Amino acid sequence: MRILWLSGREMEALLEMGEVIAAVEEAFREHGLGRVQMPPKVYLYFEKGDLRAMPAYIPSLDRAGVKIVNVHPENPSQGLPTVMASYVLVSPATGQPLAVMNATYLTDARTGAAGAIAAKYLARQDSRTLGLVGAGRQARAQLLAIAELFDLERVLVASRTLSSAERFAEEMGKELGVDIKACEVREACGADIVTTTTPSRKPVVRDEWIREGTHINAIGADAPGKQELDPKILRRAKIVVDAWEQAKHSGEINVPLRERQLFREDIHAELGEVVAGKKPGRESDEEITVFDSTGLAIQDVAAAALAYRLARERGIGRELEF
Amino acid sequence: MRILWLSGREMEALLEMGEVIAAVEEAFREHGLGRVQMPPKVYLYFEKGDLRAMPAYIPSLDRAGVKIVNVHPENPSQGLPTVMASYVLVSPATGQPLAVMNATYLTDARTGAAGAIAAKYLARQDSRTLGLVGAGRQARAQLLAIAELFDLERVLVASRTLSSAERFAEEMGKELGVDIKACEVREACGADIVTTTTPSRKPVVRDEWIREGTHINAIGADAPGKQELDPKILRRAKIVVDAWEQAKHSGEINVPLRERQLFREDIHAELGEVVAGKKPGRESDEEITVFDSTGLAIQDVAAAALAYRLARERGIGRELEF
Repeated sequence: MRILWLSGREMEALLEMGEVIAAVEEAFREHGLGRVQMPPKVYLYFEKGDLRAMPAYIPSLDRAGVKIVNVHPENPSQGLPTVMASYVLVSPATGQPLAVMNATYLTDARTGAAGAIAAKYLARQDSRTLGLVGAGRQARAQLLAIAELFDLERVLVASRTLSSAERFAEEMGKELGVDIKACEVREACGADIVTTTTPSRKPVVRDEWIREGTHINAIGADAPGKQELDPKILRRAKIVVDAWEQAKHSGEINVPLRERQLFREDIHAELGEVVAGKKPGRESDEEITVFDSTGLAIQDVAAAALAYRLARERGIGRELEF
Repeated sequence: MRILWLSGREMEALLEMGEVIAAVEEAFREHGLGRVQMPPKVYLYFEKGDLRAMPAYIPSLDRAGVKIVNVHPENPSQGLPTVMASYVLVSPATGQPLAVMNATYLTDARTGAAGAIAAKYLARQDSRTLGLVGAGRQARAQLLAIAELFDLERVLVASRTLSSAERFAEEMGKELGVDIKACEVREACGADIVTTTTPSRKPVVRDEWIREGTHINAIGADAPGKQELDPKILRRAKIVVDAWEQAKHSGEINVPLRERQLFREDIHAELGEVVAGKKPGRESDEEITVFDSTGLAIQDVAAAALAYRLARERGIGRELEF
């Protein structure tokens, strides 16, 4: 029996953002239709970080698997990435492991894809400007994904230090051929679509900076206590989460829920319900919409199944004796 | 960054049973001392089987990881094993994946090791005969492990069909140089140590066949509804489980507990508590002892850490670009 190994470099070559968006959108649709299995993430806790096992099964894809991913915020000081992920893809029919993959880029890409899908259903269709709050790896993926679905005229990027925002603007401006400007958070918040990707534990986006009609992708909060938006924004917004069970304890909504500034009934829908047509997306040009992303295991299995199919078609990867 | 791949063949060469027993015993001791992390197994359910993700962290080993393992009972009709497992071993300090392994043999070996460790603390020290009920892969591992710790004079093996018991007796007798005889279940139950490894859903071992002083390793039951022993045996035995939380819903005790033939207070200890010296093991030559094994993720991480260390020392395995 053989198993396919796909390195990080091979995964980057295989996973083209447009295709990842299509695969992840299909996964959200299946989720919205109640046709996936996705038990809660399981955590191990270390002194300087944690490890998460994320299993999921999408019957319509005939694929299942488990992502194993860490978060170690101090890693960069040792020259290692904060997040490193592996994926084991399995055949549901026999349980046979099909492939083991570096899933670090996959994690970036599928998270970017979720932001783009949320914007497709929740942002104004004529959105032309994107504001990024945070200028790290995930900001890059969010920008690449939004650029797939929207004709961006201008991107504004804010970061804790102006220099990192400027570096991001220069690099990504070249790569995408789009006008990108480093700025203050306030200015970035004036864009049609605002995407936050910081690890903040207190709001960085103020209520008075967000105008009517804005769509916000709140990506950064993925653990209890994390929060990027002034809760007042949530109070006047239509809120869509990726999955209620995850978002309530680790998404953007977790702190406001705990502090009773927000309640279950303030949540409009899960993204899958909107994609599946069970709940409406944006209904007027004036409403403020917020997508709260925590990252779902179904996004991973959809992207991993895509990478595996493409790798097989193109003869990429290394076959190992299992 | 590089990651080590270890194939099934390499794992079999690396994992010598005596060393696996020592590593797994240490894992049980840490478990008994409350110094491990082991969240519950997470399941995905397929039409013809299931998949389990089993994360664990043993700080004293400085290793963590996740096993991904299926159970597909109809696989042998397609020439595939019922169980196929992979392991992703991780450094707790950085979250970096260190190795990906075929963990199918590891699963056999660490389960065999648990049986031997249980017998070390619970069987009579002068035990010389082993009775096996079931003659599959796991019977083989249990025999190899018990043979490491006891001077076996005679092994009795019973199976659903006499021919498979005879085949087992011939093959394993040659391999171990021990007298092995195929027989009926009743006769196998007369041994000093009795090990059951069947997938049965109703008792195959009758109360009247078990004499005083016997130690039973009940290995087969690993899912709700499974059961190998007449509950009357449990009523007169000192029962040790590997982990109460797992055993109560999927171990040998699950059916008797549900049917109120057995209660929480009838469980003497977890094996780790006995290994750590917190609870006594066998206290007289007359008592009947039962070890209820469901298989713990700490056994896997201990064996995987061992395989990784040995592979590094001996230059075994293939380094892959991560």
